[in-house]
Amino acid sequence: MDFSFFDASACAERRARLAARLGNLPALIAAGAPRPRGTHRGHYPFRAASHFLYLFGLHLPKAMGLWSGERWQLYLPEPAADAALWTGPVPDFAALSEMFGVAVLPMPRLAETLARKTTSTLPAPEFETCLEQSNLLGREIRPGVLPAADEPLADALIAMRLVHDAAGIAGLREAADATVAAHLAGLRATRPKIRESEVRAALEAELCRRNMTVSYTSIVSVRGEILHNEDHHHMLADGDLLLIDAGAETRGGWAGDVTRTWPVSGRFSPTQRDLYDVVLLAQAAAVAAVRPGLRYLDLQGIASHAIAKGLIGLGLLGGDPAELVADGVVALFFPHGVGHLIGLDVHDLDDLGDRAAYAPGRTRSTSPGFRALRLDRDLVPNMAVTIEPGFYQVPAILDDPERTRAARDRLRRERLAAFHDVRGIRIEDTILVTANGHEDLTSALPKQAPAVENAMRAS
Amino acid sequence: MDFSFFDASACAERRARLAARLGNLPALIAAGAPRPRGTHRGHYPFRAASHFLYLFGLHLPKAMGLWSGERWQLYLPEPAADAALWTGPVPDFAALSEMFGVAVLPMPRLAETLARKTTSTLPAPEFETCLEQSNLLGREIRPGVLPAADEPLADALIAMRLVHDAAGIAGLREAADATVAAHLAGLRATRPKIRESEVRAALEAELCRRNMTVSYTSIVSVRGEILHNEDHHHMLADGDLLLIDAGAETRGGWAGDVTRTWPVSGRFSPTQRDLYDVVLLAQAAAVAAVRPGLRYLDLQGIASHAIAKGLIGLGLLGGDPAELVADGVVALFFPHGVGHLIGLDVHDLDDLGDRAAYAPGRTRSTSPGFRALRLDRDLVPNMAVTIEPGFYQVPAILDDPERTRAARDRLRRERLAAFHDVRGIRIEDTILVTANGHEDLTSALPKQAPAVENAMRAS
Repeated sequence: MDFSFFDASACAERRARLAARLGNLPALIAAGAPRPRGTHRGHYPFRAASHFLYLFGLHLPKAMGLWSGERWQLYLPEPAADAALWTGPVPDFAALSEMFGVAVLPMPRLAETLARKTTSTLPAPEFETCLEQSNLLGREIRPGVLPAADEPLADALIAMRLVHDAAGIAGLREAADATVAAHLAGLRATRPKIRESEVRAALEAELCRRNMTVSYTSIVSVRGEILHNEDHHHMLADGDLLLIDAGAETRGGWAGDVTRTWPVSGRFSPTQRDLYDVVLLAQAAAVAAVRPGLRYLDLQGIASHAIAKGLIGLGLLGGDPAELVADGVVALFFPHGVGHLIGLDVHDLDDLGDRAAYAPGRTRSTSPGFRALRLDRDLVPNMAVTIEPGFYQVPAILDDPERTRAARDRLRRERLAAFHDVRGIRIEDTILVTANGHEDLTSALPKQAPAVENAMRAS
Repeated sequence: MDFSFFDASACAERRARLAARLGNLPALIAAGAPRPRGTHRGHYPFRAASHFLYLFGLHLPKAMGLWSGERWQLYLPEPAADAALWTGPVPDFAALSEMFGVAVLPMPRLAETLARKTTSTLPAPEFETCLEQSNLLGREIRPGVLPAADEPLADALIAMRLVHDAAGIAGLREAADATVAAHLAGLRATRPKIRESEVRAALEAELCRRNMTVSYTSIVSVRGEILHNEDHHHMLADGDLLLIDAGAETRGGWAGDVTRTWPVSGRFSPTQRDLYDVVLLAQAAAVAAVRPGLRYLDLQGIASHAIAKGLIGLGLLGGDPAELVADGVVALFFPHGVGHLIGLDVHDLDDLGDRAAYAPGRTRSTSPGFRALRLDRDLVPNMAVTIEPGFYQVPAILDDPERTRAARDRLRRERLAAFHDVRGIRIEDTILVTANGHEDLTSALPKQAPAVENAMRAS
């Protein structure tokens, strides 16, 4: 086993801080079970649930960490009889106990120890472990459903994980650097008459080489208007834009998340360049605004306003920018949120939904331009977020009379027809909030149109 | 969505054959649910359960196929409201019905239609879908546990899937070809002073390029003595052997499975070459014996006997080859089965365990050389199997007085010390049983030691 990425002291410090928040409230933190591939007997490489990883630092299948109210303990399944032959020698419980600085005990002991009535937990990502949690605690636990009794534990972890510690920031930097390198490899591989899958291969090979994986299924698509397009079979043609939304996951589980959109030919057409610059200006305006104290929701407004102005400038929209945003006209072209938290999950803490991502008292807007926003908290130093505005021509939106009704004559369809070679553009970076402003962790990846073209020429 | 790999007529023909076997016994075939990554909201690319894929040909998340006793139907969840925006336009139920040639209906209708008391099913790979199956049928369904009532359905599918049809053989050939190409890419990337993960990256990129994935987690290891070693962080050193056990999975779900072992330096040491040739001769002897009517268990004997003779020749063992096999002495160095079924699963039908892989009336041997064997059926034309003997120096075995007791003085430890530069060697090909003998689907990949060295020199 590879323990090189294990940061014992960061984990110990996090456990101590969580214990201080919980006091005598016991808590059970599940690592989760390996996810089966085609049958129940073959598995994906095991990746522990993020709350467990945050506190214990290693991908230990079916492990459970317990805060008893007095001390931390770690419960593990006993290794199978032939484990050394099939999966290699593993440290025994005594050695693991030394490594973690907590008692390590066999799983069957957990049921004896557990204060069944008072122990909080958070649902594991999958049903297998949730069933185990249900059996242990005598109440129903399901993925994605937070019982009221577990809210204090959730809130304690949310408070901690919203603000990254030094080890977390180092993890995010490592993920960001690998993500930049992977995008560059994809950029260098891009050329007409190959499939999307060839670019994806070049990009993901750069991660695999570093013994990392992806933090989500890579989007590598000439159909950028499909926001989470996971198909990779299309051929790249000369006039296409290729949209790449892909990120690394480090061995320690930290996520990268970057989007770039580049021309397959190595050169933007004039219409592509015009719209690219609109998105780029919107992204730059939102990034520039990131600082402690800013409400994240305001970035949605800043980006949307910039897109409105840009589209007016190109003659695609008419009217007043603020009204175009408020009436949901900009959302016809920019129908998603401007970004999200990032950390051990690419949408960090998304197992806890808006409880984590929206400040107490704030709820989702119902307006078309804001309802898809995944985050609305006031920024604080060492929070990490993405900023990712976009422009898309989505037939399901633009051909829908109901969705477009509010646009009235402000949507200039005859002018839009001239921009038919743009299906989707998105530009996204990973941004760390600092004491006085922000740091763009993925700024090394070209994004000005001439810089993108230069990088492609150089390859 | 990419439907290019969908073979409607092969699926229709399989459904008709299964229906003929089932008669008026209703059957529910589940595709399974997407597997979560770090949280319940992000997923691995969806891969349908193999029984569903065999009959319906597409990876349709949460789909259920129903044989009502009179006709086939396909039940699908209704697409989410914004599905076209997020994951792209999908054919509506009428278009899917046309594609499949069966009625396609919304999932909520299934509970109305289902003959709850008499319907058979097979457990999906994961608990989420098994819970759904349990709810629908009113009885407990768990991954990997086959209720007696479902045995006739299992046996019907086993009988069909043991013998591949033309579409299945085409799928296996496609997987085999990609697997060979991937191994060649890995071979070309191999050199001292890089990590195992770099070779893995080159190998898997070749699959990704073809829009395929792996059929199991690639083993790319200088610690070949750990049979399912999934670590990839070791540096390659000049005198190491690198063991690669990796296979493609086609878009349609067909599996490749090949193992090669090559020297990091490009040249086998004399001791490595000696033991490599022992394994190669054993593999060749087993492959040569493959023909209809042969009992697969006999291949374990043939390979073990060849290894015994080879190790006697090298002075590592003394005594009579047949006795060395029978006494489990060969199993000290070759502690696993000689191969398994291959098809839509890399260990085909392994969700049904020995019910599928052992002929009725046959059970696992308790002898050390045979108990790990995954398959014991009489071979028939169009069955596909792997042949994969190996030689390993596993400390957990060789240092165990109990395991080695039966070897007595026949194990020549002082001579063994001279072969310390061999940790693990395995050689594996995918073999199709033909009418008169067999075809090695992966024979294009070099395996004679000089051919391996030549291929490495050429790179």
